[in-house]
Amino acid sequence: MQTLQVALGERSYPIYIGQGLLSEGSLLTRHIAGAQVVVITNDTVAPLYLDKVLAAVGERQLVTQIILPDGEEHKNLDQFAKIMDCVLREGHNRSTTFIALGGGVVGDITGFAAACYQRGVEFIQIPTTLLAQVDSSVGGKTAVNHALGKNMIGAFYQPAAVLIDIDTLQTLPDREFAAGLAEVIKYGLISDEPFYHWLQDALPQLLAREEAPLAEAIERSCATKARVVAADEREGGLRAILNLGHTFGHAIETHQGYGKWLHGEAVAAGMLLALRLSVQRGAVDGAAVQQLADLLQQAGLPVSPPPEMSFDDFMALMKRDKKVIDGRLRLVLLEALGRAQVVEDVSEQELRELLSKP
Amino acid sequence: MQTLQVALGERSYPIYIGQGLLSEGSLLTRHIAGAQVVVITNDTVAPLYLDKVLAAVGERQLVTQIILPDGEEHKNLDQFAKIMDCVLREGHNRSTTFIALGGGVVGDITGFAAACYQRGVEFIQIPTTLLAQVDSSVGGKTAVNHALGKNMIGAFYQPAAVLIDIDTLQTLPDREFAAGLAEVIKYGLISDEPFYHWLQDALPQLLAREEAPLAEAIERSCATKARVVAADEREGGLRAILNLGHTFGHAIETHQGYGKWLHGEAVAAGMLLALRLSVQRGAVDGAAVQQLADLLQQAGLPVSPPPEMSFDDFMALMKRDKKVIDGRLRLVLLEALGRAQVVEDVSEQELRELLSKP
Repeated sequence: MQTLQVALGERSYPIYIGQGLLSEGSLLTRHIAGAQVVVITNDTVAPLYLDKVLAAVGERQLVTQIILPDGEEHKNLDQFAKIMDCVLREGHNRSTTFIALGGGVVGDITGFAAACYQRGVEFIQIPTTLLAQVDSSVGGKTAVNHALGKNMIGAFYQPAAVLIDIDTLQTLPDREFAAGLAEVIKYGLISDEPFYHWLQDALPQLLAREEAPLAEAIERSCATKARVVAADEREGGLRAILNLGHTFGHAIETHQGYGKWLHGEAVAAGMLLALRLSVQRGAVDGAAVQQLADLLQQAGLPVSPPPEMSFDDFMALMKRDKKVIDGRLRLVLLEALGRAQVVEDVSEQELRELLSKP
Repeated sequence: MQTLQVALGERSYPIYIGQGLLSEGSLLTRHIAGAQVVVITNDTVAPLYLDKVLAAVGERQLVTQIILPDGEEHKNLDQFAKIMDCVLREGHNRSTTFIALGGGVVGDITGFAAACYQRGVEFIQIPTTLLAQVDSSVGGKTAVNHALGKNMIGAFYQPAAVLIDIDTLQTLPDREFAAGLAEVIKYGLISDEPFYHWLQDALPQLLAREEAPLAEAIERSCATKARVVAADEREGGLRAILNLGHTFGHAIETHQGYGKWLHGEAVAAGMLLALRLSVQRGAVDGAAVQQLADLLQQAGLPVSPPPEMSFDDFMALMKRDKKVIDGRLRLVLLEALGRAQVVEDVSEQELRELLSKP
């Protein structure tokens, strides 16, 4: 087992990465302070891992399980309200601990619920998808979606601990596994060129879900994210580079309606757009586009946005992005492979050129 | 004008207290960073002060007004969702500033909305009731109610500034003014005995809404609260003393249904219960009970809970209090006039004796 510390002062917390961690009860219980626990999961993950987690939690004064419907389309205020109804009805107090067992949707909505319940209770993340393990479990971003935009209602709220049991990836559907790889590839692109090249070599082993390269990929991804978040917890500056491909990606997800494209799929198409734009601006060599397209395609990810999305669709949706400040679009582009920056001077003309490409 | 600084490190903020502050645009605009503003108020306050605030805000790229229905029964997730719908529809981004213009309900829901919108935007409080000026505008507690408990869904979120224009108290209905006095009296009871005696003398002038004693009472109340909050922002310990009378009070409010008893009225009856219990335990001289009852009565406040509320009603509701930890009731009692403490060893028998009194 590897332990990675996210350094955030008094909000610092450990990420445990390894095999069989769900069966090690003490790992979990050392982070549960009180006698009450709420385990929140979804109807896909519950049959697979809920019993293991409940066994690890053990006998307590009050243990409540909440099983949400699976899917991004349920990450909304309605489900949030249902969680609140349930924990209040059951009588949970301020010393309860919320445990998120599942992918990014479960983690985001559980984290937001933990942030708001009685103005904040402890929470622990047990991410069971590759995407959640390398992305949403690190950094304290919690949120629910709104019909008018993704993650529009949320909070910065750090977990007490994150448990990544690599074994859970063995049950992950291929499509979701690929979506997670998109974010892994992102870390290479934005700040770790050697890792990017390592991924190009190791992809077949990763796709075969071999444990050692999986642990390596997750650890390097989390370490990069932890480093960036530690430097900029509330996204004042540097942290924005984690959003490479996300402004385009969020537009795609919103346009298609939540749940049709997976987040990682939209980010994959978005990253390629960001790289194309970086090439278009002369920052990166053109050969990088084909290399990234190959890597994404090999991983089973899309390399272009939905054909029916027009330039106007993109512009209308991107202007609602959280990174927009006083009407100015801010995009994450590459200065070079392994180095990202936020730029604010992308013109509508450049975007028209980029998005009109076949 | 007096300026009081709430010392919370990088979250420190000023409270301005004085007459005519709403007409001084620069006071407000120095705390608005961006080009977008959302003013949230209610249908009672809007006709009185909204124009003044909009004039002070001035011309901006985007100014949105949201007028909520007046009343504690509207401080809920539904209204919160309506605020989110509106600001998203209007296209507010992360650099927008939320302004709360109104009483505690408007302040609490606006603060919570500001805390959650895009994971946190700036917000400014303009409290227009005495209660909001001395209580909910200081300390960063934001929340909405749930049918199963008050303030159960919320966040700790500090404003960028608080503007207290004493002139707004001239339009406040007597009943609401009295409810605010309950919290003012509380500050005397928990940590400022000289202030408590000053209030006994100054009450007629306060009830006549004379500006000088009003400013004095507000400033001393805010200073006490600011001092307590600065020492314990997230209510780990000391801050709990601010809840004198609130555990009983919340039970009364919940039992009656939100909006029937004003918060300050319930707190008044609750403070007297807390004082009675303190006397019952031998901590305070019995004469204090009659003195406080006189003061509350003179201020136009209730001195006993609703007659139909049984001991069992109280117990059932108080066990849901946020201060309950692992099933143990924690109550704020007085060690002496001007000194409060949190006690955890109050027995059911003691409470039965207290609450069975005629």
